[in-house]
Amino acid sequence: MSKARVVGPVKIVGSGLIGTSIGLALTQAGVLVLVSDSSPAIQDLAIDFGAGESFKDGQDPALVIVCVPPDVTASVIQQQLVLHPKATVTDVASVKATILSKLESSSADLTRYVGSHPMAGREQAGVLAGRSDIFIGRPWVISPNKLSAKSSVDLVEALALDLGATLMHLNPNDHDRAVALVSHAPQLVASLLAARLSESESKDVSLAGQGLRDTTRIAASDPKLWIQILAANSQEVAKVIQSLKVDLEQVLKALQEVSKPGSLASLGKLLEAGNLGVARIPGKHGQSATQYAKVIVMIDDKPGELARLLTEVGEVGINLEDLTLEHATGAAVGLPELYVLPSVEKQLVSELTTRGWKIVG
Amino acid sequence: MSKARVVGPVKIVGSGLIGTSIGLALTQAGVLVLVSDSSPAIQDLAIDFGAGESFKDGQDPALVIVCVPPDVTASVIQQQLVLHPKATVTDVASVKATILSKLESSSADLTRYVGSHPMAGREQAGVLAGRSDIFIGRPWVISPNKLSAKSSVDLVEALALDLGATLMHLNPNDHDRAVALVSHAPQLVASLLAARLSESESKDVSLAGQGLRDTTRIAASDPKLWIQILAANSQEVAKVIQSLKVDLEQVLKALQEVSKPGSLASLGKLLEAGNLGVARIPGKHGQSATQYAKVIVMIDDKPGELARLLTEVGEVGINLEDLTLEHATGAAVGLPELYVLPSVEKQLVSELTTRGWKIVG
Repeated sequence: MSKARVVGPVKIVGSGLIGTSIGLALTQAGVLVLVSDSSPAIQDLAIDFGAGESFKDGQDPALVIVCVPPDVTASVIQQQLVLHPKATVTDVASVKATILSKLESSSADLTRYVGSHPMAGREQAGVLAGRSDIFIGRPWVISPNKLSAKSSVDLVEALALDLGATLMHLNPNDHDRAVALVSHAPQLVASLLAARLSESESKDVSLAGQGLRDTTRIAASDPKLWIQILAANSQEVAKVIQSLKVDLEQVLKALQEVSKPGSLASLGKLLEAGNLGVARIPGKHGQSATQYAKVIVMIDDKPGELARLLTEVGEVGINLEDLTLEHATGAAVGLPELYVLPSVEKQLVSELTTRGWKIVG
Repeated sequence: MSKARVVGPVKIVGSGLIGTSIGLALTQAGVLVLVSDSSPAIQDLAIDFGAGESFKDGQDPALVIVCVPPDVTASVIQQQLVLHPKATVTDVASVKATILSKLESSSADLTRYVGSHPMAGREQAGVLAGRSDIFIGRPWVISPNKLSAKSSVDLVEALALDLGATLMHLNPNDHDRAVALVSHAPQLVASLLAARLSESESKDVSLAGQGLRDTTRIAASDPKLWIQILAANSQEVAKVIQSLKVDLEQVLKALQEVSKPGSLASLGKLLEAGNLGVARIPGKHGQSATQYAKVIVMIDDKPGELARLLTEVGEVGINLEDLTLEHATGAAVGLPELYVLPSVEKQLVSELTTRGWKIVG
């Protein structure tokens, strides 16, 4: 018995990371999933892995999800629209405008096509990297074309919701501009930085820490896939890289002439712009990092202290939006962080101070 | 009763992240720590936090650790060498050559000075970010000068070992070249990338995922501290940024002329260099990521299967160096990863295949 919004069968063409992950999630939700991959070995592996059952000629899916590499996505969409003349067809490619323009210059029935892009991924690729939970809480871009039927849009939205994703509507051009900024240019920058390490002395690299590991993690991604993505969105990515180059040249000049007046200010300006930029990235669960005011209280590291603090916050009548208590290894105190609406921050600090609590941030 | 190699008292000048963390760790190990900060409020906070007790005039430390911002490190080292004429003095600044050259042009007694740099940090700063465990398993660079006494070098090494760090000897110039590559240039690159977000539409930024969060995380660091670090190591950082600029210009050209022959190859070459670079970064515990061969086995997700697999690996007589079992959410199978010496990988794959196990990577 299905607990999903989507009524199947759902055919998934392409058993890479995304296709397999969708298959696992829909199968778990009780939807009949039909798996199809141009490689019989990969298809068998995906089925063994739990991503669905084998697609057989003549079967009639309600929804076809095209999960193949970007350079063949448009032609596979076209084939599937012809092969299944009643089905809604969607795709999951990281670029949307070039795919739509290829389809528009074909004879494809675009009323049944709705482009989409789940913003989920891992730096590993392939069947075995598939996980049913990678879409949960992630944005899923729905990018209909002018001809898309409402029933088809509804079906693709239902798919995204079934997989736990958050819907976001963007037209293909806006989508491509956004992903150039938040995904494609960062991929190139991580690769540019990691490439500097490829020829360095291993003694130097051995000093690397978590900062470098994080900054370059995505540079481990598959070059073959990324060449296709970058090629399909080259103009939008070039705009971001061009702006970055302007900043980089200023920074380089400041470093080379570091004792000249204005050089330090120029470095500082960039570092501050970086601070601002990071603050704009939504947190793991999509909330802005700066939405709540944070009040840090220093408490004795003994049983009951946190409970006493929270009781007093309650007595003041202020609603806690969130609370974190990081374990401060080796410290003699605890440091609970209280998150409240910015409008009541001052009141909270004043009330707690009056009651003898030590506010430290 | 101290369980440390270091015999105190140890005076720590400056109660920022590093000074506080060292204080917490040494105090925990039973060493008498004397805390000194130019701000009485910060000093009191560090002592409340558990980083040691207040330094009082006339006290006679065996070791002084200077943990102040880089632009005042040399002058504070000089003061401490004069103030404590028998003590060994070290510092923890992220740059070493400019500090030593300032000291060499002074009348300081350099036999008692040994530069050092623990490769540990967090993007938060200040007393409250201090943790006693941030040095564990991290490299700690010991950078003596030509005059440093062996007894002083031994004492600074003992400090690093007491805090769980791994010793690494580098002269000041080699140190500065290495950190330009693995720390200072990556900081700038993260800031350059994050700065692109500071003026963008918030709808675009809302698509950001873990990749962008990781790539830009360190861009949240304190600009005031980083201006000093970059200024003090500007020439080495400029070299890295200059090489990166050459690559960036090639990438930009390839994107702008993406249909020209050679453009895709040029993008691919960069992405592959990025793959190679990432592979050179040591893992969390300092081991090279590629030291062992990895064999992935697909097992049924039922009790006893993993035990049966490991029993058979034992019967074959092959030593497992490491084992990981990631939970493959939603999949019908388990995917244990067996790590063995590269020399026995083929034998293991062949033996397990013969015994009916399914090897998938």
